[in-house]
Amino acid sequence: MRRYRFFAALILSLGIGAPLEAAVHHITLRAVKLPSGQLAYEMVRHQVEDQGQVQDRTSHYAQGPTIPGPTLVLTEGDTAKVTLEHGIEGSDLPVSIHVHGVHYKFTSDGTTRTLSETIDSVAYPGKPYTYEWNAAPGTVGTWMYHDHAFGDPLVGAEDQGLFGTLIVNPKDGKVEAMIDGKIQKVDLKDIKREFILWMHETTFWGQELNHLVNRQIPLWTNPIVGARLGELVRFHVIGLGTAFHTFHLHGHRWIEPGTTHVVDTVNVGPISRTAFVVKAGEGVGPGDWHYHCHVVQHMQSGMMGKFRVVQ
Amino acid sequence: MRRYRFFAALILSLGIGAPLEAAVHHITLRAVKLPSGQLAYEMVRHQVEDQGQVQDRTSHYAQGPTIPGPTLVLTEGDTAKVTLEHGIEGSDLPVSIHVHGVHYKFTSDGTTRTLSETIDSVAYPGKPYTYEWNAAPGTVGTWMYHDHAFGDPLVGAEDQGLFGTLIVNPKDGKVEAMIDGKIQKVDLKDIKREFILWMHETTFWGQELNHLVNRQIPLWTNPIVGARLGELVRFHVIGLGTAFHTFHLHGHRWIEPGTTHVVDTVNVGPISRTAFVVKAGEGVGPGDWHYHCHVVQHMQSGMMGKFRVVQ
Amino acid sequence: MRRYRFFAALILSLGIGAPLEAAVHHITLRAVKLPSGQLAYEMVRHQVEDQGQVQDRTSHYAQGPTIPGPTLVLTEGDTAKVTLEHGIEGSDLPVSIHVHGVHYKFTSDGTTRTLSETIDSVAYPGKPYTYEWNAAPGTVGTWMYHDHAFGDPLVGAEDQGLFGTLIVNPKDGKVEAMIDGKIQKVDLKDIKREFILWMHETTFWGQELNHLVNRQIPLWTNPIVGARLGELVRFHVIGLGTAFHTFHLHGHRWIEPGTTHVVDTVNVGPISRTAFVVKAGEGVGPGDWHYHCHVVQHMQSGMMGKFRVVQ
Repeated sequence: MRRYRFFAALILSLGIGAPLEAAVHHITLRAVKLPSGQLAYEMVRHQVEDQGQVQDRTSHYAQGPTIPGPTLVLTEGDTAKVTLEHGIEGSDLPVSIHVHGVHYKFTSDGTTRTLSETIDSVAYPGKPYTYEWNAAPGTVGTWMYHDHAFGDPLVGAEDQGLFGTLIVNPKDGKVEAMIDGKIQKVDLKDIKREFILWMHETTFWGQELNHLVNRQIPLWTNPIVGARLGELVRFHVIGLGTAFHTFHLHGHRWIEPGTTHVVDTVNVGPISRTAFVVKAGEGVGPGDWHYHCHVVQHMQSGMMGKFRVVQ
Repeated sequence: MRRYRFFAALILSLGIGAPLEAAVHHITLRAVKLPSGQLAYEMVRHQVEDQGQVQDRTSHYAQGPTIPGPTLVLTEGDTAKVTLEHGIEGSDLPVSIHVHGVHYKFTSDGTTRTLSETIDSVAYPGKPYTYEWNAAPGTVGTWMYHDHAFGDPLVGAEDQGLFGTLIVNPKDGKVEAMIDGKIQKVDLKDIKREFILWMHETTFWGQELNHLVNRQIPLWTNPIVGARLGELVRFHVIGLGTAFHTFHLHGHRWIEPGTTHVVDTVNVGPISRTAFVVKAGEGVGPGDWHYHCHVVQHMQSGMMGKFRVVQ
Repeated sequence: MRRYRFFAALILSLGIGAPLEAAVHHITLRAVKLPSGQLAYEMVRHQVEDQGQVQDRTSHYAQGPTIPGPTLVLTEGDTAKVTLEHGIEGSDLPVSIHVHGVHYKFTSDGTTRTLSETIDSVAYPGKPYTYEWNAAPGTVGTWMYHDHAFGDPLVGAEDQGLFGTLIVNPKDGKVEAMIDGKIQKVDLKDIKREFILWMHETTFWGQELNHLVNRQIPLWTNPIVGARLGELVRFHVIGLGTAFHTFHLHGHRWIEPGTTHVVDTVNVGPISRTAFVVKAGEGVGPGDWHYHCHVVQHMQSGMMGKFRVVQ
């Protein structure tokens, strides 16, 4: 029965003539309050219908809520149905998911009537809300999702922890990178670790996508991330909140997306981002390579971590 | 007699061998004080001499002063003679127009001797000043003009309202955009609406160029802008003042100018800008699509508007 | 004997099969305290071993400490051994050089055990430290070097004056620029003046590399820089500290590195940068062309200088 429903959903969401290989993701997230008072999303369930097979990916995620929230990974052409449950104890304010980058109807905007004057696309206690996203051509990239409804004023509680990452990978599985001093296409299959670093005021909030063990590993604040010498590693660095930052990684350099500009320090404003692939320790060898915000006041506030490259 | 003078001006400003199709714009602006105490530019007169014909465009502009000031649109190759009248009641401080992007002699810089040590290119009460601009090859883009003389200190009163937009369109009439998920050339003739949004501290100041009715429509603060589903629409987003911003438009994405980088949120500092074309509601349909600054403090201060896409 | 050692160093650092034309730079810098209490680097000695010849370039630099410190210029493929002497009177805190962009082993990172948990790559009074850099392929660009150890907290005293510029020029001697309205390759041999402008809080700190007389000229704060009409001039603009800036140069425009985006005002955050070539006075003629930060509060604080273009 479940499989039947999945097939029906597949047909409805893709329409006639759509490529058969596009997957449909059925995801349920819950917004909760942490003991610290911060808010966070947690993964409840993630099932994928792909070429007639249903795969359950729930166990790939960390258990319990994390900051940033679960990283959702789609391939260009995929669709996702994301249900949000309101699990914030002691509050009946609406909570939502507003996503960047992908296509969605206005009913999946994640805003309230207060802002939109038309509809509420939000969850209330006991009343989950389902969003539909389409990773159409032209949506490849690293994007953000975040609450756009909770709080006072009702613009959203992204800065209280309700934020996460959406990655849309290209259908051909290749991304541009500067490797061994040359700009070239890299196969995503060759990337075993991805590091997500959100820059919020004076803190990094991190997460590792480890493809060797198929697990998302929460790293919390200012983490040490690690790789073996010579491994291809992908970083996704995203701003959040009110402060502006410059992200610097010691001993490595990369190209700004969509350009041939080689950098090792880039401006990152709230919800602006850079994503890039490096070969760990390329030309520099092993080491505890710092990454940090290069704004002096943020450095002095300890906004830093390490990229540990081992032999 | 008027036509004779225009022809003389045409010959003088273009010189021998210049292409005949380049237009000469004769523009008069006035700087005035609003009842609120803010300052603003207003359009007094805009006449265009093009291939021997004189066209009066004054009626295309809003009547009275606006913030931002009148949007001046040139085509690559055009020249403009812009006369500024000082109409700021109760003040005999100099006022000026300093323009970005285009070519001009130092006598058209819009600065005072205080800054330049050489000349004053400014208007005083009863003493208008004329600037000459040349939209030479290499100057295509969205630019700014603003006062660079009034106030205390004498660096200019741009942050009191004396700013406006200059658009230099390419001679071939085509700009790059991502439409239907593909980066392609778009014909400017197919763009019926352009929206200008200046980001100043915690407020958007808007203006619409409506090519269907050939009118500039002042939109003032945090406006709702609108388009029909599927229309090509061009946004020009420009910073001003002291704060840094990140501009986000819900449900749409675009390429950063001069790159293939697909974004939906971009860093905008004072007088830095992004300009882009989107197909209204592409892949997402109608809706009251928010645009806002994604700096949380600015969101909480109400720095937002809507892009209303209707069927 | 000295030449023998240089040859040995050359062989050791390049390895078998490396191109013979790569130069090895032997540089000694000293960190000192200025009477103002600020800190600065000074050039002690710079010798270059190139194709079997030793050249002493020490006299090309300013005498005594400067802010920014001596500009180090390498060509893609070169290596540098940079020895830092601790000459900060009254302090035995460690001081270092952390460099951006180029390759170096972790022992040349310029950080302390406090940050790295592994080693100190820093100088103490009477105990100089030598860093080894490799301007490998993929490291072309304008980079920064700065202290990453001194001060309290021990993140470095870059904002007290311990910063300087490293330029890695491409092996083919060509850089992209928009000249006469067209994006084209420019030969570095045709550039006689380079201007380095660091943007620190509300001040520009400048330096000229004058290739006509082979001298580095310290310009200190908010300088007037100059060129003859039509000369090719290269600017390197770099942020520092905590504030974000937008760099604007009157009457000129350029392309953002690695893109075709034509700008005359760009976002510059701490340790982010733009570097570009312009033809002095192209299309605009001679003048005292302002450059300034376009953040209004910074303009009002006098963060400005001039680019004096003379006939």
